[in-house]
Parts: sequence; structure tokens; C-alpha cells
Amino acid sequence: MKIAFLQMDCHFGKVDENLTTAGALLPGISADLVVLPELFHCGYYFSSALEAAEFAESVPDGRTTQFLIEWAAKKQCHIVAGVAERYKDSLFNSAVLVGPSGFISVYRKIHLFNEEKTWFSPGEIPFFVVDIGSARLGMMICFDWFFPESVRSLALLGADIICHPANLVLPFCQKAMITRCLENRVFAVTANRIGMDERPHGRLTFTGCSQIISPFGEILAAAGKDEESICSIDVNVEQARSKKLTRHNDLFADRRPQYYFGGDRGRD
Amino acid sequence: MKIAFLQMDCHFGKVDENLTTAGALLPGISADLVVLPELFHCGYYFSSALEAAEFAESVPDGRTTQFLIEWAAKKQCHIVAGVAERYKDSLFNSAVLVGPSGFISVYRKIHLFNEEKTWFSPGEIPFFVVDIGSARLGMMICFDWFFPESVRSLALLGADIICHPANLVLPFCQKAMITRCLENRVFAVTANRIGMDERPHGRLTFTGCSQIISPFGEILAAAGKDEESICSIDVNVEQARSKKLTRHNDLFADRRPQYYFGGDRGRD
Repeated sequence: MKIAFLQMDCHFGKVDENLTTAGALLPGISADLVVLPELFHCGYYFSSALEAAEFAESVPDGRTTQFLIEWAAKKQCHIVAGVAERYKDSLFNSAVLVGPSGFISVYRKIHLFNEEKTWFSPGEIPFFVVDIGSARLGMMICFDWFFPESVRSLALLGADIICHPANLVLPFCQKAMITRCLENRVFAVTANRIGMDERPHGRLTFTGCSQIISPFGEILAAAGKDEESICSIDVNVEQARSKKLTRHNDLFADRRPQYYFGGDRGRD
Repeated sequence: MKIAFLQMDCHFGKVDENLTTAGALLPGISADLVVLPELFHCGYYFSSALEAAEFAESVPDGRTTQFLIEWAAKKQCHIVAGVAERYKDSLFNSAVLVGPSGFISVYRKIHLFNEEKTWFSPGEIPFFVVDIGSARLGMMICFDWFFPESVRSLALLGADIICHPANLVLPFCQKAMITRCLENRVFAVTANRIGMDERPHGRLTFTGCSQIISPFGEILAAAGKDEESICSIDVNVEQARSKKLTRHNDLFADRRPQYYFGGDRGRD
């Protein structure tokens, strides 16, 4: 199975331009699964919920999801990409999964970062996994990585590959994802954007360095910090299906939840 | 507050020699808290439970814990160190915490690594935290790091500093502890051993590189991979007490356990 990321610049508010950029890069990818950045169609740094609402689309009827569905049909592949979503009276920072036959599912970001809390509602659907036949996919978005429970949840639910659209501004995620993959024995595709959102209320620079990590913590592919790039790599998803670490250790069977503290007993 | 690690070689089965080594290094440390390696008194690579039983001691009456109590009184500090423990009919891979006034508590390793499962019983006391006045300490041992639930549990219980005696043989832990400290906003002192246990049934080489990591993921101190060394550093434990990451994010308040999967619902 071939999995890929598409790393691109996104120009704030320029949906035509951003879809054109993605559409120019997609033909160069040969893969069964392609992951695009968070909010790739509209950019990231909104000034208000009102402004986010201008760009939020319904899923799957909106323009961006339809664009992705067309490409998934054309390339006969699956695509995960970040989309600002309008659902009923709420806005979500979402990721859609589409395939050769159309729309499959939408994940709504559970852990919102900083001012996102003023633009979006937090996701209210638990982490879930989708079996696309060739692999079981889990989705999370950007800052979700900071919480070990995100990848842990997806892995315990059976994910082989974590699809991780991102707009990273902190310097920690790329290295941390090595730990996430090791501790859960999963693949992860982090598709980050590059460039900056320069807005009247401030400026954010995104860190690029998209990457694909193996269940053994190896960096299988990595992009630079400021170039648009696509990268695909052959993986054997079976590597994510055994959690056996040593003759006597299985990373999941060895968990001992009765001795842990947390869940809804957290102190906050 | 000054916190320190003591990195040393341990010679398998040579308890006199190992206590002498520790006793020669301890006078050089000026710190309020010192962490020593896992099983520092007897070495690691047992051939059988029967052999482990030869070296296991009762806690706190046994020779090694008494040795540590004497040093904690002499140096007026707290010490965490790994001890093979005999308790009733069981053997545990334990860590003791002692202070200027004597024995305080014992942690029994919850996640046993590889053949340890044939020598020791897994700990059956949940992760816990001890307030020593100057800081709240959590203990875990070596392979416990691989499970994100270990540090997460200790941090949610209020730990400022993770005391982490280790006998590491895999190459991943030192980098992963940066993620552990970041995601939980805690300090961690990983005290690893160096050298090798060359036994008739096999050989294990230990990776050294003991380290102290800050709640912001900075490496505050790091030892080499094959030298005995002590290292102490001044820290402000208050840095571990706010979990605020951005104006809108608190790493604990932002957890959303109702959307996670795991705990006793894990698939195994």
C-alpha cells in the first residue's frame, strides 16, 4: 500500500488559489492514501468566528469536499484533508475522508488550539477508525497530537495509520510523533502546511517538515520546512497489527488500566 | 530545589561492590533529591526467579534500603533508587523513596520488560505521588516510560517530578521522555546505568545517557553513554504546577476523556 502527504502553502482566504495549488500537486502523486494539511482550502488564522463562518462549508456538499471527492475518483485513491465545516449552527475544524466511491466520514477536531476556541466548536464525536479495506484509518488534527490519548484511542480502536492534517506552529510535534508511533505501533502521516498567515491581528508561521513515521519509530519520509512537496512511500500495514515488542511483551496486552489514574477521574 | 541523577556501572551479583560505588559517588552530590538506577545494588540480568530471589531484600529492613536511608540522613536529602524487593511470597522490581527521616515509600514496577516477567511479579499498587514538601514526587521504573499512561497518571495525581530509575537497553527512551515531559508539563529525572551484564545465558548492554528534562521539554542535564557521573541542577518546581500552554489552553483542563477510548475498555 502506498501512502503519501501533500505539503503546500495556503493563502489565507483564497479558496480558488488553494484548490488550484492542491489540484496542481495531486496529479504528481501515485498513492492509495493521500493526506493534505488542516484547513488547506482557506488558511488558518481567522480573526473571528464570523470570519471562519465565511469559509466554512457543509460536508460533504460543500465545494472543498466535492473537489476532494472528484480527485479521489480520478486517482482511485483515498484522501484525508482538513476542511472548515459548518454543521447545523456550529463551525468545526474538521478532516474529511473520501474515497474512489465518494464521501466516507468526517472527524471534528477534539482538542482545539489557542484562538481556534473562539472560532470553532470542539468536536463531539469520539475518536473513531474507518476500515477502507487496505488499512484501518484513524484521523486526528494538528494539536490533537499533544494529548497521548488521541493516538492511543485510535490505536486501541484498531487504527493502522494515523492520518494527521496539521497547521503546526510549535516546534515539538514532528519528534513527538516518533514516540506516538512507537508507543502504539502505528504508522502516522503528518501533512503540515508551510508559509505564513499574515493578518491585521497578527502573523503565524507554519513549520512544514511533513513526515511519515513507521510503527517502529523510523522516519520513512520527511519534507523540508518551506517547500511545497509531495511524498509517497510503500508500507506494509501488517507491521501495525502486531503489538509484540519482545518475546514477553505486547504493547496493548501489557497495559494495566486498573493501576492508572485519569479518564474522567482527572483532577480538572 | 536541586535535583540530581547518579549514573553508575553495576556489577551483576556484586552487592558489596555496587554499594561501594554508589557510596563513593554520593558524597560528590549536593542536591535535595537524588535518583539512582534500577536494581543498582545487584545488577539486572537474572537467569531465573530463583536467582533474583537470592538478591531480593525486604523493604525497608533490607541492606540496600538501610544503606540509602543512612545516606539520605547524612546528606539531608531524598533518594529514589531501584531495589529488588521480596514482599511476602513475591519478588518485585521496586523503587524506594527515602528521606532525611527515613523510609517513605516503595513503588513496584507496573510494566515488566521481557524476561523480567519470569523473575518478578508485576506491581499491584496503582501509581501514586508523594509530597515531600519541596515537591510532589512520582516514581516509575525503566520500561514504564513506554506506556503514556504511566507519566500521565503521575502527572494527573499532581507529580512535579518523575523519578525514573532505569536499566535501559532500547534506544528510544531518552528522546521519548522529552515528549512525556511536554505533554504532562513535569520534570523527569531518568537515572540509567552503564556497562553490561555478561551472563552465561546472554549479554545486555545498558545505554547510559541519564538526563533531567524540564516541563517545557528542555534537556537540563545529560550524561554520556559510558561514564559514571553525577549531575545536579537547580529547578523551580512551580514550572510544573501550571498546565497552561497558551492563553486558551490548559493541558489538563483540555483533556476530553469522554471522547477517548481505552482504560478498561481496551481491546485486549
